[in-house]
Amino acid sequence: MAANWLEQPMQQPNAEAEDQARAHQLQLTKPAGALGELEQLAIRLAGLQGRVYPRVDSCHISLFAADHGIAAAGVSAYPQAVTAQMLANFVSGGAAVAVLAKLAGARFDVVNLGTLQRPEPDPRVVDRWLGPGTADFTQQAAMTVAQRDAALLAGAERLAEAQKAGCELFVAGEMGIGNTSAATALGAVLLELDPAQLAGPGTGVNATVLAHKVALLRQGLSLHTGDNPRVLELLRRLGGFEIVAMVGAYLHAGQCGVPVLVDGFISTLAALVAVRLNPALAPWLLYGHRSAEPGHGLMLEALQARPLLMLDMRLGEGSGAALALQIVRSACELHSGMATFAQAGVAGPGG
Amino acid sequence: MAANWLEQPMQQPNAEAEDQARAHQLQLTKPAGALGELEQLAIRLAGLQGRVYPRVDSCHISLFAADHGIAAAGVSAYPQAVTAQMLANFVSGGAAVAVLAKLAGARFDVVNLGTLQRPEPDPRVVDRWLGPGTADFTQQAAMTVAQRDAALLAGAERLAEAQKAGCELFVAGEMGIGNTSAATALGAVLLELDPAQLAGPGTGVNATVLAHKVALLRQGLSLHTGDNPRVLELLRRLGGFEIVAMVGAYLHAGQCGVPVLVDGFISTLAALVAVRLNPALAPWLLYGHRSAEPGHGLMLEALQARPLLMLDMRLGEGSGAALALQIVRSACELHSGMATFAQAGVAGPGG
Repeated sequence: MAANWLEQPMQQPNAEAEDQARAHQLQLTKPAGALGELEQLAIRLAGLQGRVYPRVDSCHISLFAADHGIAAAGVSAYPQAVTAQMLANFVSGGAAVAVLAKLAGARFDVVNLGTLQRPEPDPRVVDRWLGPGTADFTQQAAMTVAQRDAALLAGAERLAEAQKAGCELFVAGEMGIGNTSAATALGAVLLELDPAQLAGPGTGVNATVLAHKVALLRQGLSLHTGDNPRVLELLRRLGGFEIVAMVGAYLHAGQCGVPVLVDGFISTLAALVAVRLNPALAPWLLYGHRSAEPGHGLMLEALQARPLLMLDMRLGEGSGAALALQIVRSACELHSGMATFAQAGVAGPGG
Repeated sequence: MAANWLEQPMQQPNAEAEDQARAHQLQLTKPAGALGELEQLAIRLAGLQGRVYPRVDSCHISLFAADHGIAAAGVSAYPQAVTAQMLANFVSGGAAVAVLAKLAGARFDVVNLGTLQRPEPDPRVVDRWLGPGTADFTQQAAMTVAQRDAALLAGAERLAEAQKAGCELFVAGEMGIGNTSAATALGAVLLELDPAQLAGPGTGVNATVLAHKVALLRQGLSLHTGDNPRVLELLRRLGGFEIVAMVGAYLHAGQCGVPVLVDGFISTLAALVAVRLNPALAPWLLYGHRSAEPGHGLMLEALQARPLLMLDMRLGEGSGAALALQIVRSACELHSGMATFAQAGVAGPGG
């Protein structure tokens, strides 16, 4: 990838394919609009894929994992060691997203960007280890410029690999004990809100821990935002390696013209960062679900996103998007598989 | 089926299997509750299927079709002939529910309970023709006692056939030009509301037609409800053959212990009728989606139902439930396929 890859422009959706798909929907044997958001989804994907009959037979889920310095301050219900333990669970198929990826027939890869312990070589895990997790952003910047840029590139590379394998819809998932703290801090800056308005239970902390988490986030923000840093610098100071990798993957998806299905709170924060970096990315991002994390709704609103599912999921990993893949596939099947009024010999409205 | 089949009791869910499934969920490698409604769904299905690891590999969708006398009064955007035309579209795979049934790997059958024209023999359609549609209920009772009882039985028979073939989850769909009028009339009586509070665009009528529809519904209600008839008699006076068949199928599902996934407005009305006839049916009914029809939300509330999807669908046919089958199946796969903390060697909360 060229050194200046991040500056490359986004592709534009194909308006002609979208218009033809919209016209095709009106011919299908149902009242116009009766399939609701499934119709809009098929039409929009037609524009993104540049073909009247979009397909999502070949989907790709990349799981980005890394540890967070702030986790040592006790913001999570789980110890940091869980990040590395879960990596093994992802590749052996026992984690939720792995089960859903298999069910959806999606390709699935796992990327280690920085677990607390340097990982043993494992052919099932893509090794992009950048260090033993980020630094605690309440004390210093989370990462160096070199780490940030390497994480962006690692994400973009996964997207490029997926595209090479024919990926028709891309999902980025994440794992990182403490990463709701990083995402909440970044979200608060970008949406100009207090962290308390975005902070939720994450993996399930109680009210005392939540108050502690909010206090730490405010401390981090006061340390890092006084000089109004630009978005890429904010990402370096407050982000996590896996969050940065998702930003890189999303931006490269827009550059390559690969539609993305965004997952929950952390993934949507990465989408928000990426769209702030390049607003022309927005059309390439579809949203899988609205999670139970309170801040997720605020970020979705800021992105004018209408997520497909609302099932009170709050796991991350890409699990909500992996589930929503089935809805997207159904929308495509209906769009291409239903008979038209003419084909079926069915009278149209008023007919 | 015995002549008094309708009086047979409902089965009871298995509380022990449900408890064991709830305990199992707490062992899976995710924060407790992080899979939201998917967890509740797996736990509830465990109770309904009487096994800790429920499955919905074998699903059955029965599509019940019939015409409605009131359609001649111009309450629909489509001519009555569409009901019969759509039957052919169902069996040849071009209708939305047929596409979704195939995608979900569900068995799918189509039952003609009374199209306007007596159908030609077609081995792909189950012939339970009871007459050329119902009578116009603004003028007289929609059907005779014999027709109602035959329609109830036809529905129950489909459930029994499905169960014989190993059905683990049953969906009833419907097709009948004018059937939102019958469903709205019945719903208004059962919920003690004015038809205007429940009436929606159906297949897509405008405000003038909608006002006409509401006036006709009020006329039908004033003709048929003055003597406070019991629910089965109301069903005879205001129902449609396909609605009655769904009521029969749902009631027999509870008797046989087969879980049901209810579809949209018409299907939910049939569920409401069936639950009024026997409240012990309620636990057997899961709800696939909330449709765009305004009355659907009110009926779901009355049933204390939490539908899985909200995608502004308003097609009927069982299409919303057929789509939601994939969500139910995902909940089962996660429940049985995810690793436990012990299996994966992952530390639990606080661990």
